[in-house]
Amino acid sequence: MKRSDRLVSLMNYFLENPNEHISLPYFSDKYDAAKSSISEDLSIVDRVMKEEDVGRLQTIPGASGGVSFIPEFSREKGNRFIDGLCHTLEDPSRILPGGYLYMSDILGDPKMVNQIGRVLASAFSGLKIDVVMTVATKGIPLAYATAAVLNVPVVIVRRDPKVTEGSSVSINYVSGSSRKIQTMVLPKRSLNDHANVCIIDDFMKAGGTINGMISLLGEFNANLKAIGVLAEADDEEDERVVEHYTSLVKITNVDIKQNTIEVHHGNFSWN
Amino acid sequence: MKRSDRLVSLMNYFLENPNEHISLPYFSDKYDAAKSSISEDLSIVDRVMKEEDVGRLQTIPGASGGVSFIPEFSREKGNRFIDGLCHTLEDPSRILPGGYLYMSDILGDPKMVNQIGRVLASAFSGLKIDVVMTVATKGIPLAYATAAVLNVPVVIVRRDPKVTEGSSVSINYVSGSSRKIQTMVLPKRSLNDHANVCIIDDFMKAGGTINGMISLLGEFNANLKAIGVLAEADDEEDERVVEHYTSLVKITNVDIKQNTIEVHHGNFSWN
Repeated sequence: MKRSDRLVSLMNYFLENPNEHISLPYFSDKYDAAKSSISEDLSIVDRVMKEEDVGRLQTIPGASGGVSFIPEFSREKGNRFIDGLCHTLEDPSRILPGGYLYMSDILGDPKMVNQIGRVLASAFSGLKIDVVMTVATKGIPLAYATAAVLNVPVVIVRRDPKVTEGSSVSINYVSGSSRKIQTMVLPKRSLNDHANVCIIDDFMKAGGTINGMISLLGEFNANLKAIGVLAEADDEEDERVVEHYTSLVKITNVDIKQNTIEVHHGNFSWN
Repeated sequence: MKRSDRLVSLMNYFLENPNEHISLPYFSDKYDAAKSSISEDLSIVDRVMKEEDVGRLQTIPGASGGVSFIPEFSREKGNRFIDGLCHTLEDPSRILPGGYLYMSDILGDPKMVNQIGRVLASAFSGLKIDVVMTVATKGIPLAYATAAVLNVPVVIVRRDPKVTEGSSVSINYVSGSSRKIQTMVLPKRSLNDHANVCIIDDFMKAGGTINGMISLLGEFNANLKAIGVLAEADDEEDERVVEHYTSLVKITNVDIKQNTIEVHHGNFSWN
């Protein structure tokens, strides 16, 4: 295969397999090319990835060496993306009763969801996460988008057990804002002992739901490694029951009477 | 930018933007290259896409012309993928009470889900679909994977209205197998008049849930263009209330006593 063809094929391979270790001999075999040619190809791909702000190739030298595609956002591109999110969300027609915000259009756009997933994943890429956990329903697309980049599976916590998931573990938790006792269930088969878990959700007010998921992790002897949310509601900060988390945007000063709202960058920071 | 760099960048661009029309001058500007060079680049990309079985570039000639990346599976690759699915699902330890099948591991694997979405999307790519619809919870990842390829948004029907979605339209429907009356809701803002809709779900028994979604489409003056499911249960065929649909696999002869199950190719066919 010629270099030009290899470059197209390599780019396809890396984008399909982010955060996966691939040995150089694999590519030598696949393309019937010398290791030195493959190395040159990889440096071209790496350079363009950086220029286009999609990530970088991480090369591990030595006998068990190889290469991984690490999807990444530059600080500049990421900040621009979050600016855009803030601007979109600041539309007063999004305000719903109870200080909630209509976000279903954003969460229904696969391209937008994949971008959000990439930003969240870039915050957690060094944490050796085994699985992404979310709760039905709205967090699901963000959880998949994040998990696809981290190259790990997703488990979905439900509020009602389903016959199609086999036996399950359930817990009761106190909802942060309404103080109601609620139930959460997770199928027994879905989480291994000592799994390193990243919790993803769309919206956090006081954090009761996320706290429920943390309790559930205890039942499975799993480890909480990170929490990521698209939006947090600032107004509930005093009552917050969750401490360490990453948010892309922070919603403040929702005024239903004046029909105004402010949306700022969340606590997400670039490494 | 040199050809080698352009090829890497172009492949990234197309994979990020499937089924989107892009004018050639856009690329000429982006890469500061002659149209003739871009045309040669595109023919290299097209050739490798076909060789690697990821799809093809569709070129529209003329003044308003341009190029679109059409993701596609060859019949051979698609059949191999469905064979693998059948084999994975035929494991008797997946059998659950009521003739259901444990599939959460497959539906929890983002790579697998994206592949399923690509196969389903390839069946519907000529239908001018505006939006993919699914019902919470298990169909959601498949709906997003399909919608990402079709380059359209997703709307999620729920069984309970949620405060964070604004006013909504609800209908009652009869569940196919249990004959129970159930409710389905969709936020008013989520679907435009006369939208062309593709319904995606993970599992179809008699089809009552899908039939419910079809009734809901009527309330929004939307058009049903296609129905796609990962798996259908063959045993319920006599009671089926849905006629035209595409399934990847068909589950038959689930025998809880003997602990056996058969999984075959569904009615999916390659164009």
